[in-house]
Amino acid sequence: MERLKLETCFTPALFEPGLHSGSTVVIIDILRATSSICTAFEHGAESIIPVAGVEEARTYKNRGYLVAAERDGIILDFADLGNSPFNFSRENIRGKTIVYSTTNGTGTIRMASSAGCIVIGSFLNLSSLCNWLIQGNQNVLLFCAGWKNRFNLEDTVCAGAIAERLLNSSGYSTICDSTTAAVDLWSVAKNDLRGYIEKAAHRNRLKKNGLDDCIDFCLTADYTEKIPYIKNDILLSDIR
Amino acid sequence: MERLKLETCFTPALFEPGLHSGSTVVIIDILRATSSICTAFEHGAESIIPVAGVEEARTYKNRGYLVAAERDGIILDFADLGNSPFNFSRENIRGKTIVYSTTNGTGTIRMASSAGCIVIGSFLNLSSLCNWLIQGNQNVLLFCAGWKNRFNLEDTVCAGAIAERLLNSSGYSTICDSTTAAVDLWSVAKNDLRGYIEKAAHRNRLKKNGLDDCIDFCLTADYTEKIPYIKNDILLSDIR
Repeated sequence: MERLKLETCFTPALFEPGLHSGSTVVIIDILRATSSICTAFEHGAESIIPVAGVEEARTYKNRGYLVAAERDGIILDFADLGNSPFNFSRENIRGKTIVYSTTNGTGTIRMASSAGCIVIGSFLNLSSLCNWLIQGNQNVLLFCAGWKNRFNLEDTVCAGAIAERLLNSSGYSTICDSTTAAVDLWSVAKNDLRGYIEKAAHRNRLKKNGLDDCIDFCLTADYTEKIPYIKNDILLSDIR
Repeated sequence: MERLKLETCFTPALFEPGLHSGSTVVIIDILRATSSICTAFEHGAESIIPVAGVEEARTYKNRGYLVAAERDGIILDFADLGNSPFNFSRENIRGKTIVYSTTNGTGTIRMASSAGCIVIGSFLNLSSLCNWLIQGNQNVLLFCAGWKNRFNLEDTVCAGAIAERLLNSSGYSTICDSTTAAVDLWSVAKNDLRGYIEKAAHRNRLKKNGLDDCIDFCLTADYTEKIPYIKNDILLSDIR
């Protein structure tokens, strides 16, 4: 049996859409967009409308939607919620549709919209996501949101954690240097993941803004079994 | 004393020229451009004229220059030499000016031309280069040529080897995730560098074309003390 292809893209600036049509694309932006999305669905959100621009988010707010929106880690003045998974409590969001705009994550989701299938990845849904990918029969692209088109460590080690499991299954192989690097960085990080993420530039950005309280939570494996996915530009709870 | 900044760029697609004016930029394309350039100067080349395009190389050839040119690892039909460091023997190049066009390396050199100072890095001149950088007083960008705008392992681990030495000196610090990743990948690779590079996609590209005979040589530390540099768009032997 020919093995399925596994590839990794470190930032939107390196994304080559033509190469991945038909693939399953896993969006990874663990501090904090994809962790928050997984948390929202675990806590009963009905759907999430991702928007890339601030003005688009404001328009939805004026039409009465619940809006979660931040830029550079700071909640926007018109928004109901920020981008911390702690904002997506059951009380805040159960049964609701949320309009969600973030610095990196939602733009990345939009970029990948030409792919066959787009799902949301984080440590919070690691096992469930990997098991679903292994049972599937699609090439996979792990698409890290990065930070303003730059490489970042936290999304890369999460991609490495996913890649390790897929490559340990018999179904996947890779000839992609980015995937090899992600797996090797995960091998360095995994014995002390919290300590490793201390080195990440974005961890220090969040700390400066007092927004780093959720980092330990975002590094927690298997908080949920939900695998959020995109259908008609809307995020829904679980692809299974 | 404030420490100097050390940053790493994985591919030309991620290069942000505005951030690095005044910095020393180290171009890294170890399989095979920057290894060949270091070898050429160790073997007595007078100067190297880097050109990005095939037609530009052909024009120089028609004017009587010695031309080294390849695309995708294959020597071009009009060229005198290919891109293997083994082509740059003393007999071939001592005292000569070489016109040199390669797939990734020379284009990268051109891109960085707005930087303060551009030098050539490889394992072949590792110690000499690092000692010179440590004695200098400039911010440093390690600029990996990558492969067709993609991340590659071999240039990244070389960047990591350089970064490790600079960070171990008291002069440099980094808040750049790419630099941290490069150092960590080097830490994984360094105990069996040849074995590690077996995993690299480009090593397999070269192997397929029978061009992998020079890889062991390209991974040799300190074959030369030369630090090639750019002056007026020409590569010269040693910046010291």
